[in-house]
Amino acid sequence: MTKKIAVLPGDGIGTEIIEQAVRVLGALKLDLDLETQPVGGAAYDQHGHPLPPVTLELAKKADAILFGAVGDWKYDNLPREHRPEQAILGLRRALGLFANLRPAILYPELANASSLKPEVVAGLDILIVRELTGDIYFGQPRGVRELSDGPFKGDRQGFDTMHYAETEVRRIGHVAFQAARKRGKKLCSVDKANVLETSQFWRDIMIDVAKEYPDVELTHMYVDNAAMQLVRAPKAFDVIVTGNLFGDILSDEAAMLTGSIGMLPSASLNASNQGLYEPSHGSAPDIAGKNIANPLATILSAAMMLRYSLDAAPQADRIEAAVQKVLQQGLRTADIYEAGTTRVSTSEMGDAVLKALE
Amino acid sequence: MTKKIAVLPGDGIGTEIIEQAVRVLGALKLDLDLETQPVGGAAYDQHGHPLPPVTLELAKKADAILFGAVGDWKYDNLPREHRPEQAILGLRRALGLFANLRPAILYPELANASSLKPEVVAGLDILIVRELTGDIYFGQPRGVRELSDGPFKGDRQGFDTMHYAETEVRRIGHVAFQAARKRGKKLCSVDKANVLETSQFWRDIMIDVAKEYPDVELTHMYVDNAAMQLVRAPKAFDVIVTGNLFGDILSDEAAMLTGSIGMLPSASLNASNQGLYEPSHGSAPDIAGKNIANPLATILSAAMMLRYSLDAAPQADRIEAAVQKVLQQGLRTADIYEAGTTRVSTSEMGDAVLKALE
Ligand SMILES: CC(C)[C@H](C(=O)O)[C@@H](O)C(=O)O
Ligand SMILES: CC(C)[C@H](C(=O)O)[C@@H](O)C(=O)O
Repeated sequence: MTKKIAVLPGDGIGTEIIEQAVRVLGALKLDLDLETQPVGGAAYDQHGHPLPPVTLELAKKADAILFGAVGDWKYDNLPREHRPEQAILGLRRALGLFANLRPAILYPELANASSLKPEVVAGLDILIVRELTGDIYFGQPRGVRELSDGPFKGDRQGFDTMHYAETEVRRIGHVAFQAARKRGKKLCSVDKANVLETSQFWRDIMIDVAKEYPDVELTHMYVDNAAMQLVRAPKAFDVIVTGNLFGDILSDEAAMLTGSIGMLPSASLNASNQGLYEPSHGSAPDIAGKNIANPLATILSAAMMLRYSLDAAPQADRIEAAVQKVLQQGLRTADIYEAGTTRVSTSEMGDAVLKALE
Repeated sequence: MTKKIAVLPGDGIGTEIIEQAVRVLGALKLDLDLETQPVGGAAYDQHGHPLPPVTLELAKKADAILFGAVGDWKYDNLPREHRPEQAILGLRRALGLFANLRPAILYPELANASSLKPEVVAGLDILIVRELTGDIYFGQPRGVRELSDGPFKGDRQGFDTMHYAETEVRRIGHVAFQAARKRGKKLCSVDKANVLETSQFWRDIMIDVAKEYPDVELTHMYVDNAAMQLVRAPKAFDVIVTGNLFGDILSDEAAMLTGSIGMLPSASLNASNQGLYEPSHGSAPDIAGKNIANPLATILSAAMMLRYSLDAAPQADRIEAAVQKVLQQGLRTADIYEAGTTRVSTSEMGDAVLKALE
């Protein structure tokens, strides 16, 4: 049966990197129907909204979304609801993409790219499972109000609400335990239970969910400590599960430990395994249009898409093996280039992956 | 005029490290009146509360508080309001200690201790100014409730409130701009304004406060990006100002970049420069009582106390110079020991600092 893919290149380098991923998908001879629509700033320019109906409708009916990146300085002064990143938040919310999988892997060939010492990060392979539709991201009430009593009476106050319902914690817990079961069988739940009610609630439910996974070892860590341990000894982690806000911070920190964020894919899934797949890096408007961006994170995101949403694990394996191969061949885009390797452009890297696929 | 110091050793290694800081203060021949009371688990054991009235009263009337560390596994199963860390939260709140100053400095002699490459961290000297009494730490309402409508109707939900009043943002802004003015004149305000109302409010006020400091360059960064940039290029920062929750995470991450958290002091100040001074590390119950903990962070906290609360900057300089000297002499406690240096105990390190002060 034909699978429908929504291709949303977005802004900045989005178009260039998506193009290479689309070429790679094309080479696999799968029965895919790809349809492209604008998103983010590009969509705002064309339709007056970062997530216009034509794009949202396509995303909803697709089996999976291949997403480039959004954002550019030229949209910085738009009102918040029209800014490019609202498209990401809107898609997550509309499709219920609650489970964000963010691997942080350091390829042996790229060990030097890290700002950490090789012995600290060589062989790094951790997975961060971030809850993506709850927490303080969408919590109501929120806004700015005037205080009518208390020590700051008469002051304006900005406020937001953090919250998690039991169902939300349980379902991300199951995703994380199942992922851990397929890997090193160690799950670290990160929270701030010594301060936050939401976190204590989260922790209690994780402990309850753990009863169904006696083969997985569950530990708990405060978020401040997790931010430290990621720097000190990241390889001690296997899978980390955490809420939306802490996950935003820790998954980016973990990605940067590798020094090669241009290599890291991500998946955001809903309950029916519909998913949005995007590189972990941003839209890099400063290098857009120069054919120098690294397309590998996007190509690897396409591999995740095949595995998680399209039931095509063998093809996902093939793509991942091809990426390994081009790295072994010494091919590098500018972001991961070092002396002794061969610098290639975005499209040359795409060519090389296609060749390695054969 | 005699200055009153509340000495609160706390738990774990607290007693040992405070002892050395007290010896150093004694050697300065200042007119200080030191009074000791228990705090944290030790206070719970003696008085049934981590911050009993006798300790709180002493802290309130003191000019400054020299604090060791609190926490031990044996208190992990107490109800939250009796756990050791509630003493810290209670003191911050009761004394209005809204401004937390957390330097992250890498001493040249300790460059190898870091898990980052020497070229990335050598010479690191950044200051994190963390707001300490607002944000989601004390925000009301908070708790666990049952949902009466919405997609999770009937579910229990944990919730907390994040908020900042204008006055709170302004006063921490002034502390940060003034600190930046005395250093590299660069201030980076960290928030999550693309998602949180509280953050957008915070950012708008920082921009307004900046008008009074035309000599300081203000930039803004999202917290996820800040967590990355601290790993990638920490030396690009001078002063960072941020809210209580983001500051908790980023100040610990920054401290760990140095690899020598046993060296890092901190100060928490209120509007009248009354302050609480404590090492950035914890109570380390696993090594308590062994005379091997590093007392230098606590000794340097005493120096910060002299500078910020006791108007004794020359004496603070003397302590800091003495600490530099013992490092140059190659003396190291176990946490910062490496081949070629001389390993010393907690008390021997105290002896050495006293000697270097002469
Ligand atoms: C753009 C922003 C709203 C988003 C987030 O905070 O979730 C981004 O940082 C991410 O992690 O995908
Ligand atoms: C113990 C805890 C409540 C505290 C905090 O989160 O503020 C600690 O992590 C700190 O940073 O001093």
